Amino acid sequence: MKVHKFCKPYCITNGKKFKLKDFNPADTDGFKPGKNLDERIAQGTRELQKWQDKLYAQDRWGLLLIFQAMDAAGKDGTIKHVMSGINPQGCQVFSFKSPSSEELNHDFMWRCMKNVPERGRIGIFNRSYYEETLVVRVHPEFLKNQRVPAPLITKNIWKERFEDITAYERYLSRNGVKVVKFFLNVSQKEQKKRFLERLNNPKKHWKFSAADMQERQYWKDYMAAYEDMIRHTATEESPWYVVPADDKLYAHLVVGAAVLHALEEINPTYPEVSQEQMKRIEAAKKELS
Amino acid sequence: MKVHKFCKPYCITNGKKFKLKDFNPADTDGFKPGKNLDERIAQGTRELQKWQDKLYAQDRWGLLLIFQAMDAAGKDGTIKHVMSGINPQGCQVFSFKSPSSEELNHDFMWRCMKNVPERGRIGIFNRSYYEETLVVRVHPEFLKNQRVPAPLITKNIWKERFEDITAYERYLSRNGVKVVKFFLNVSQKEQKKRFLERLNNPKKHWKFSAADMQERQYWKDYMAAYEDMIRHTATEESPWYVVPADDKLYAHLVVGAAVLHALEEINPTYPEVSQEQMKRIEAAKKELS
Repeated sequence: MKVHKFCKPYCITNGKKFKLKDFNPADTDGFKPGKNLDERIAQGTRELQKWQDKLYAQDRWGLLLIFQAMDAAGKDGTIKHVMSGINPQGCQVFSFKSPSSEELNHDFMWRCMKNVPERGRIGIFNRSYYEETLVVRVHPEFLKNQRVPAPLITKNIWKERFEDITAYERYLSRNGVKVVKFFLNVSQKEQKKRFLERLNNPKKHWKFSAADMQERQYWKDYMAAYEDMIRHTATEESPWYVVPADDKLYAHLVVGAAVLHALEEINPTYPEVSQEQMKRIEAAKKELS
Repeated sequence: MKVHKFCKPYCITNGKKFKLKDFNPADTDGFKPGKNLDERIAQGTRELQKWQDKLYAQDRWGLLLIFQAMDAAGKDGTIKHVMSGINPQGCQVFSFKSPSSEELNHDFMWRCMKNVPERGRIGIFNRSYYEETLVVRVHPEFLKNQRVPAPLITKNIWKERFEDITAYERYLSRNGVKVVKFFLNVSQKEQKKRFLERLNNPKKHWKFSAADMQERQYWKDYMAAYEDMIRHTATEESPWYVVPADDKLYAHLVVGAAVLHALEEINPTYPEVSQEQMKRIEAAKKELS
C-alpha cells in the first residue's frame, strides 16, 4: 500500500509559509464514508502490526506521536481507532492534563521529557509540551501559576519556547526518537455539533466540561496560536500533520497513513543473527529433534 | 564577604579560546592551608544557609550544580564539605554511575532531565550528561551499548552533543533553573598520590576500583575531551569553573565561592506579604495575645 499519498497533502515539514486557512477541516479528498474507507483503515492496522513487531525486535529507534487539538476534535477516538490492534507491550500512551503541583514545580517540558518512549517503543502523547504554546499562550496569566520567575517573562517568551521545543525535538531525532505531530483540525461548527451530541447523550455526559465550553469564545486566539506554533516548529525531521478532522473516519485514515509512513522511513528490520548464534540455533534444533 | 574574587579567575563564560594548560591544578592563589582557609570556608557555609533559606521560601528559581572530574579529584569530598550544613529538604543530590539498562533504553540526557531540581531547590549532579562527551568520547565503542541507531553515529556526533547540551541548559535558564558547572582539575601526579593512599588505607579500599586505574592510561585523551567540552559548552548563563583541585581545601573555597556567587546573582528574596495577608497576621496576633 502506498500510504504516503494519503498523508502527504497534510504534512508540513517547513512552517515558514504555513497558513491555517489553506487547510479545510472538512476535506475528505473524495472519500465516501463506508466500506471503502473502513477497509483501507483495517489494511493499515495490519501493516502497522508488522512494522511495530520489527521496531520492537530491533530495539534501536523510538517513535513519538504527539496529538494536539481543540476539545471534541477526536484525539481520544483517533488514538483508540488507529492504534488498537497493536501490541500494547510496545506502546506507551501518556495523557497530559492540567499540570499537577509537582509538575508546576519543574520546567514546562519536564513531565513530557521523562515520559519519552524507550527504544523499540511507540510513545503517544495525548497533549504535550505544546500546550504551553496554546492554552498558556491564550491565557498568559497561567504563567504565574507555573511560578516562572518574573524577569524571565519577556516579550520573547513564545519565540524562546518554540526555539527550545525545536531544539529538544532535534536532540531526540539525533538520538533515535522520531517525533511526528498531529493537529486534528476540526471546525468550530463541527465542534458545536459534537458538544450538542455530548449534552444530548447521557453516555457521553462524563465527557462534557463547562471549561471546554468557555474556551470556545477564544476560538480565534487558539487558531492563531496553532498557526504560529506550526510555523515555528514544523521541521523536516519532526513534521506537523494538519489533519482534516470534521470527518472522523477520514482523520483516522490520514493519521494511520502518517504513522505507517514514519515507520517506513525508520524502516526497522529484525536483528541480524551472527554466524555464532546461527550455529547455536542449529545445535539446539538437533538436540530437540 | 566579596566572594566573586575567589572564584572569578576560574570562571569560563565563553569557551572559544579556552586552553586547559592555562590552568594550574596546584594553584592556591597564595592561600596557606590551615586556620585562614578553614575560617573562610566556615563563613561561606553560614552565608550559604541564609541564601538557601530565601531560595526555598521564594520558590521560583532552581540552582543546578554539576560536578565532573577524573577519579580521585575530590567530587564526593567537595560536595560533602561545601554543602554540609545546608538544609537537605532544599537540596537534592544525584550520582550518575554507569547507565542502567533502563537508562540505556533512553536518549542520553533522559536520566538527568528527569532529576533536574524543582523550583526553590539546589540540585547537585555528581557526574551528568557530560559523561557522554568524556568517557563515551574516549571510548566511542560505548555508543554501541547505548544502542544508538548506526546511521546517527556520524563524524558530527560530538558537535551535535555539545549543541544539544547547550540548548538544554539555555532552556533551563529560561525556565528559572540556573546551571553552574565545575571541573575539578586535578593533576595526574596528585591522582597517583591519592590512588596510593587508597591502596594503603584499608578504610579507603572500598573506593578503589581497577577500572579507575585503567582509565589513567587515557589521561591525555580525557584532558583533550575536557578541554573541548568546556570550549563548546561554557556560556554566560551556564559557566564552567575550572577548579584547581590538587589542594582539597582550596578547591572547597573556590567551589563554595562560586555557589555563593550564583545565589547572589539569583538574589532570591522572601515572598512579599500582601496587605490582605498582613491584616490576617495582625488579626491572628490579636487573637493569640
